[in-house]
Amino acid sequence: MKITVVTSNSNKVAETKNLFQPEIEVDHISLDCPEFRNSDVNIIAKGKAEYAYEKLHIPLIVDDTAFCIEALGGFPGPYAAYVSDTLGNSGILKLLEGIENLNASFTTAIAYIDKTGVRIFSGTLNGWIGPASGINGFGYDPIFYPGERSLAALELPEKNRISHRAKALLAFRDWLVKNRVLVCEDNR
Amino acid sequence: MKITVVTSNSNKVAETKNLFQPEIEVDHISLDCPEFRNSDVNIIAKGKAEYAYEKLHIPLIVDDTAFCIEALGGFPGPYAAYVSDTLGNSGILKLLEGIENLNASFTTAIAYIDKTGVRIFSGTLNGWIGPASGINGFGYDPIFYPGERSLAALELPEKNRISHRAKALLAFRDWLVKNRVLVCEDNR
Repeated sequence: MKITVVTSNSNKVAETKNLFQPEIEVDHISLDCPEFRNSDVNIIAKGKAEYAYEKLHIPLIVDDTAFCIEALGGFPGPYAAYVSDTLGNSGILKLLEGIENLNASFTTAIAYIDKTGVRIFSGTLNGWIGPASGINGFGYDPIFYPGERSLAALELPEKNRISHRAKALLAFRDWLVKNRVLVCEDNR
Repeated sequence: MKITVVTSNSNKVAETKNLFQPEIEVDHISLDCPEFRNSDVNIIAKGKAEYAYEKLHIPLIVDDTAFCIEALGGFPGPYAAYVSDTLGNSGILKLLEGIENLNASFTTAIAYIDKTGVRIFSGTLNGWIGPASGINGFGYDPIFYPGERSLAALELPEKNRISHRAKALLAFRDWLVKNRVLVCEDNR
């Protein structure tokens, strides 16, 4: 059984291989997919999958992740990467100065597409924003606390056990294994 | 001569009609176009135009606008509308507390596409961020000062004389009038 991951982010490929292989072979194609301007990662992932399938005509997955801070109306939402690159964690902390509700969450949507259509698998990690700590991970990890320690304070295997992306990938893997025949047929 | 404006924003249609008619007839089609995740409005507008042309097969224009604040690494850039809806002007002012460089700019790219390809026309309005004032306009207009008064303190005709979108639309209109035959042929 083989699945193609469409992404321009090599970290995502490694994470998928780590969870799927050797049972499921993971191929990688780097393709930049346009996105509908929407705050719902399910809709964004579905649109990206349809775009990629139109170009590639093979069963594939794409993903999209949002980082939502409750007190900021869901900001930065699906623009997490752009906001991290421009404002950074110091900008997020400045926006939250004087605000009591520090709840935040990561959500990843995996969209799988084949000739029968699109299926979405999602995973969420709830937590709150706190002072930067820890040296692992990237992006918002130092200021996001799913428990007593920030995501950046966790070792990678520990992060991968609880992460939003791992949850979504595992939900997809379980479905894929159950529907093996369907995917193999489409793959010919 | 006729041009089709592809947008889901009726204000943009009205502004285009105001600048183009009666010399150029303006049609409107509402179509949501996905966008490549990019901080360059020219690239975003080009991608949207290509998507729309693939669906509609008629000469058309789409636009994309970015709002860039120098001290924030260009933030909110092409995500101006989303950031306005979530953080609002109070969020922008909070991010700029204690910062001296308040330079900002609006840039609109108009992408025109027909069977010969894509052409981009752009317009920029430079200014700075200041305290909210004025009751006209929308979005960032109350905190954006292109001169002594905020954009929201200007009457609409005055705003339309200097605006980034008007500059881009007029550049396109001038080109369109000079290339009338080409467009008419494609329109058959």
